[in-house]
Amino acid sequence: MPPQRHARGLAILQQINPLSANALFNELAGICPDLSNFVTEFAYGDIYARAGLTLAQRELVTLSALAALGNATPQLKSHIVGALNAGCTRQEIIEVMLQISVYAGFPAAINGMLATKEVFTQLDQAAATP
Amino acid sequence: MPPQRHARGLAILQQINPLSANALFNELAGICPDLSNFVTEFAYGDIYARAGLTLAQRELVTLSALAALGNATPQLKSHIVGALNAGCTRQEIIEVMLQISVYAGFPAAINGMLATKEVFTQLDQAAATP
Amino acid sequence: MPPQRHARGLAILQQINPLSANALFNELAGICPDLSNFVTEFAYGDIYARAGLTLAQRELVTLSALAALGNATPQLKSHIVGALNAGCTRQEIIEVMLQISVYAGFPAAINGMLATKEVFTQLDQAAATP
Amino acid sequence: MPPQRHARGLAILQQINPLSANALFNELAGICPDLSNFVTEFAYGDIYARAGLTLAQRELVTLSALAALGNATPQLKSHIVGALNAGCTRQEIIEVMLQISVYAGFPAAINGMLATKEVFTQLDQAAATP
Amino acid sequence: MPPQRHARGLAILQQINPLSANALFNELAGICPDLSNFVTEFAYGDIYARAGLTLAQRELVTLSALAALGNATPQLKSHIVGALNAGCTRQEIIEVMLQISVYAGFPAAINGMLATKEVFTQLDQAAATP
Amino acid sequence: MPPQRHARGLAILQQINPLSANALFNELAGICPDLSNFVTEFAYGDIYARAGLTLAQRELVTLSALAALGNATPQLKSHIVGALNAGCTRQEIIEVMLQISVYAGFPAAINGMLATKEVFTQLDQAAATP
Repeated sequence: MPPQRHARGLAILQQINPLSANALFNELAGICPDLSNFVTEFAYGDIYARAGLTLAQRELVTLSALAALGNATPQLKSHIVGALNAGCTRQEIIEVMLQISVYAGFPAAINGMLATKEVFTQLDQAAATP
Repeated sequence: MPPQRHARGLAILQQINPLSANALFNELAGICPDLSNFVTEFAYGDIYARAGLTLAQRELVTLSALAALGNATPQLKSHIVGALNAGCTRQEIIEVMLQISVYAGFPAAINGMLATKEVFTQLDQAAATP
Repeated sequence: MPPQRHARGLAILQQINPLSANALFNELAGICPDLSNFVTEFAYGDIYARAGLTLAQRELVTLSALAALGNATPQLKSHIVGALNAGCTRQEIIEVMLQISVYAGFPAAINGMLATKEVFTQLDQAAATP
Repeated sequence: MPPQRHARGLAILQQINPLSANALFNELAGICPDLSNFVTEFAYGDIYARAGLTLAQRELVTLSALAALGNATPQLKSHIVGALNAGCTRQEIIEVMLQISVYAGFPAAINGMLATKEVFTQLDQAAATP
Repeated sequence: MPPQRHARGLAILQQINPLSANALFNELAGICPDLSNFVTEFAYGDIYARAGLTLAQRELVTLSALAALGNATPQLKSHIVGALNAGCTRQEIIEVMLQISVYAGFPAAINGMLATKEVFTQLDQAAATP
Repeated sequence: MPPQRHARGLAILQQINPLSANALFNELAGICPDLSNFVTEFAYGDIYARAGLTLAQRELVTLSALAALGNATPQLKSHIVGALNAGCTRQEIIEVMLQISVYAGFPAAINGMLATKEVFTQLDQAAATP
């Protein structure tokens, strides 16, 4: 039943990056809430919920696609947080960006690396705030 | 020294997909052998040789970038073999193609999946040949 | 309930391009039948089934995206047939390819136009076969 | 004669989005006014002026290409206005962005949808200003 | 007057790659001859005919765009011939493909290099035919 | 030996755009200094250092790839400066952006042209500062 897909997707979003998902859903509420449902139900409830890859593997694979395509910086930053929450190390994320230089060129790798730095810096600042 | 980069790259190519690398290097010999060296030394000797990700992780990340970009079918097929040789399971490769549907759309996912099927079928036929 | 999404998607596929959909599903059966279900349920059952655009409008919009991206020729050809079955005229399809020259350049427009010609020729030959 | 192409293109630009075209032409005046002429004469005088698709259809097709390519946000926003002026409904534009999720993935669809929201909000604010 | 644009474009096509242009125009005759005119008049009559870059420079720049985008192999091969006819050396073309590895990754560079090899081989075979 | 590649790359960066390279290397220092080395050694020490194309030719070819891909504005702006420092004229750079309209469409050409204008304006302002 659809409620299962929805609940399953929300549970994964909750685990990976609830702040970012909520911000997106709030933004979409004023224009097309159905898109939030498709993200939750198809992307997370159907695909991310599958066995066969761990959540951490799915996030590394996602970072690679987003950095290679190079036209989705907000989603890239959101999934850098998601990758950390799924258990990836900072070094693994950095290595994905280096790997991208081989397949999509240096600008994609550099822009992905600078987005990574920006996210890491924000997380460090948030952690340092008493 | 460069010889180290070259030897290190060749060793990884030998482990991942020597047939495909040799075929490429033979093709490039007649037009630009330096490109073979850049592939060996930079892509494999510098990047693939790094710690921080396993070879299997690097191959999954590579499959994701290649399937998302969608303009490099020969390289995609070659790295499907490489992923298997690096220890990835068939199911992991299939899941990468499904994951791509979320970030690059269904045509990229379908074309990546059919390339995957083609490689698996070739490997099965080769294995079945007495 | 999911059965509704599946049945709804299949009904639209039946209307638009059943031959091509069946061929794809047969190919995917040997590697990942779940991908056929995601195509049927999400792409057709969730998206194509929506009000707000006619099927003919959705097909023109689809042709534009596929021709602009330029990396999905099999899907482009399949949706040229789909556009005709959804009620688009041949001239409308030709005009979409011309429109693409402005936004994605002449190679994308030319390659989309030649794919269009190939599909029209096949349809004419099939119609001429007694 | 070229003057016809120029006048024809300007007339369509006047109908679709004169503010945005004027702003662009002012910007280009300081670097390459010929590019403004090519936009006016080729894109609008030659292509948009053709029969075979209505202006509204051409705008939906354009939105689809721009959202799928994902690397031309200013042009996407300008054509969201153009689509409304050509007679498209807000719902039709929203549906184009949803359709894009199938062919270019969710990030392209989400970024297109948020650009749509931004344009609609600006138009609403302008309309509410006494 | 348009006849000037047309004649100017045809003259450049005649100089660069008449065989390939004629083959394309013959193919397009059966589906959309207007597209042949837009190629002749806009691409060649308006753009290639400009001062500011030599034809040889325009061809190198074109090869770079086509190899980087990676979705227009027929056009890439046609412009490799065009570059030679415009006075570029074989080595210059090879170097463009290497340069692409930095900005669009190794698969784009390798596929561009192999297309280059194919064209050079065909030209050599044609030249060797008594 | 690697020191040669590094020194050779740094010398070319010094000649082309030292300010931009230093800014990038400072940014990367906090996340992945190895990426700075790969840029210096592979992109500049291996590729830009080759004979077969002049530095000015390499920069024009680079501008074409970056403008066509359209997803690397910071790198595009940096190489507009680099092209001027390598001896390209302003008119040659403008012509590359016009050429892109044929192969990657008008949005890529317009966005490349506006980036060009921004860089030229900044250089003029810097030159006018006493």
